[in-house]
Amino acid sequence: MLAFAESEYRERLRRTREQMADRGIDLLLCSHPASMCWLTGYDGWSFYVHQLVMVPVDASRDPIWVGRGMDANAARVTTWLADDHIIPYSDDYVHSATKHPLEFVADLVRQGGWDRSRIGVELDTFYYTGRSHTSLTGALPNATVVDATKVVPTVKAIKSDNEIAFMERAARIVERAMRAAVDGVAAGRRQCDTAADIFHAQISGTAEFGGDYPAIVPMLPSGPGTNTPHLTWSDAPFRNGEATIIEIAGCYKRYNCPMARTVQLGKPPQKLADTAKVVVEGLHSAMEAARPGNTAEQIEAAWRTTIEKHGIIKESRLGYSTGLNYPPDWGEGGLSIRPGDTTELQENMTLHIIPGIWMDDWGLEISECIQVTPQGGRAFADFERNLIVK
Amino acid sequence: MLAFAESEYRERLRRTREQMADRGIDLLLCSHPASMCWLTGYDGWSFYVHQLVMVPVDASRDPIWVGRGMDANAARVTTWLADDHIIPYSDDYVHSATKHPLEFVADLVRQGGWDRSRIGVELDTFYYTGRSHTSLTGALPNATVVDATKVVPTVKAIKSDNEIAFMERAARIVERAMRAAVDGVAAGRRQCDTAADIFHAQISGTAEFGGDYPAIVPMLPSGPGTNTPHLTWSDAPFRNGEATIIEIAGCYKRYNCPMARTVQLGKPPQKLADTAKVVVEGLHSAMEAARPGNTAEQIEAAWRTTIEKHGIIKESRLGYSTGLNYPPDWGEGGLSIRPGDTTELQENMTLHIIPGIWMDDWGLEISECIQVTPQGGRAFADFERNLIVK
Repeated sequence: MLAFAESEYRERLRRTREQMADRGIDLLLCSHPASMCWLTGYDGWSFYVHQLVMVPVDASRDPIWVGRGMDANAARVTTWLADDHIIPYSDDYVHSATKHPLEFVADLVRQGGWDRSRIGVELDTFYYTGRSHTSLTGALPNATVVDATKVVPTVKAIKSDNEIAFMERAARIVERAMRAAVDGVAAGRRQCDTAADIFHAQISGTAEFGGDYPAIVPMLPSGPGTNTPHLTWSDAPFRNGEATIIEIAGCYKRYNCPMARTVQLGKPPQKLADTAKVVVEGLHSAMEAARPGNTAEQIEAAWRTTIEKHGIIKESRLGYSTGLNYPPDWGEGGLSIRPGDTTELQENMTLHIIPGIWMDDWGLEISECIQVTPQGGRAFADFERNLIVK
Repeated sequence: MLAFAESEYRERLRRTREQMADRGIDLLLCSHPASMCWLTGYDGWSFYVHQLVMVPVDASRDPIWVGRGMDANAARVTTWLADDHIIPYSDDYVHSATKHPLEFVADLVRQGGWDRSRIGVELDTFYYTGRSHTSLTGALPNATVVDATKVVPTVKAIKSDNEIAFMERAARIVERAMRAAVDGVAAGRRQCDTAADIFHAQISGTAEFGGDYPAIVPMLPSGPGTNTPHLTWSDAPFRNGEATIIEIAGCYKRYNCPMARTVQLGKPPQKLADTAKVVVEGLHSAMEAARPGNTAEQIEAAWRTTIEKHGIIKESRLGYSTGLNYPPDWGEGGLSIRPGDTTELQENMTLHIIPGIWMDDWGLEISECIQVTPQGGRAFADFERNLIVK
């Protein structure tokens, strides 16, 4: 069931260890399900309990999966790890007030000889809780525990050709799902029925390959709700004269290709139509700047320069690295497209450039998921890139 | 857009403050999206960034929502809070290596006069990260920060009649989704197409009301994969002679009603058929014991006594409180049905009793979501409760 050849996982491990060595980290504890999957292939909806992968910087020692007993078989079938590198904890660690899985991990750390070492943790990753941290540091008083939140996201921001191929498949799925969404936004139709059609397209995928669950459900703010980006849907009907923002992804084997569009039922207000044109122009400027050698903040600067001419200001970030992820986020946490992020762009980084404009009582989004290439940002998906009027 | 009357939220707040007072907590910081929703109504897929609700024990002070700027409008439309109790942070706090939203929260704590108080945090809740904790405690050296992970889950384990009505609606949805699932498991059909049908049924809901996204996607281990519970689906076909475990929920306005069934294509192996009968018998014993006055562990004991007669042993917990939740879990984290959990059951607690048996190369699950009543556990949903052979 491995999604990639073992050699590809080993290459990822090699690049991760380089980063670890640069930061003097002897052992990296990856709690993020995306980090776990990227390094070992592990895949299953078991991340509602504590689990992690231990990565020694020593290349002679393979990573170790640690998780709940009932999930060990999932680790056996989805990862390339040998059986003795899959270490389950007993069920009484689950949601216990008196014992914690990170204490079990601390025992493994001691047994591995790392209790006086420098240990990196994904400190600001959901899935590594406050209590994960107090349990680990409390049980390992002689270890130096450091923040390594960005290590894996930084390395995995640059995709292999095989990963790009997965993003392409995700793009085929998001094209279909967005088609279902645009077709489904119709006056009088319930929002939930359109959301259901989007899900169906996302999961059934194409005749050649099936879809995986995107890391975020369809976001579908409609009417006055378009002034804020993260509302989902209700069973109220879409209404004539109103706009609906659709932000969705296609997903193939955990690789997410997101896309946002805005649909207007009936004649759009002039400010919406005008702003949409500016947003598309700014998006094109941003894509143009997404080439190796430029920095993340230069993408944002290109966008800003273009839209400022038209008097539009956007204070939130313009996008982020995306691809392999689990709920609650399809952003990978690697880089942010905003002033101050001086990460140098590299070929095969995959970014979601999402110019969202949210005003007091209206808003719009038109976005693209792109691959950084020497010719600029290449959109993975092919879908009408403007305000869609029905 | 409030799901319940403001008076119901205020009653929840009153009960929460009782718990806080019992534990000497002056201020509770609720980072869990389910706690936030339960107390204020807040709903939106914005929990991929830091956000929380501050709950003063002082009943004269209303809770405060703190979140990202672009989500403040979502707080305005989905909560009962006054505008000046919705406090957004600026976008440069998002995924920053140099500043953290919990530092912003610490400033509000200081402004509110709580910087020498006893502050409860949901320490082991995903969404309260290690860095949330180090940022908060670092910025508030004179506060006493205590673990309050269980406060809201314990209070919300007991449902109001209005919440029970929502669970009923979720049950109508899970019946339909399970029907789609059972119909969709057929030899030669791709797993992803059946998963798509399940999603469609979950989200479109009924003609009377729409569905919300369950907190967990369909889990659909098939064939040899049934030896582990948390695999999702692939685009491989279902095969004759193999079993498939279906674990799904219906969801109405964030209230999840889960259910598991096992479908066998063709004649079941004797051990599977026999074990299924024992599991159903044990499930009935467990449901019988789910009445006020008994404890959580007594439900498990009733189950164990029944199945031990047949030589079956299950080491993992038998279930948990369920209802209002967000990804990654529909379990509420309140109580666990296992030895050692002496929580006294109360009327209108809602539990998922899930006897899952996972062996070396096969397994099965047959579960019910129940309401604790004086007559024992009442299943919300009505669906053929045995091994389903097609």
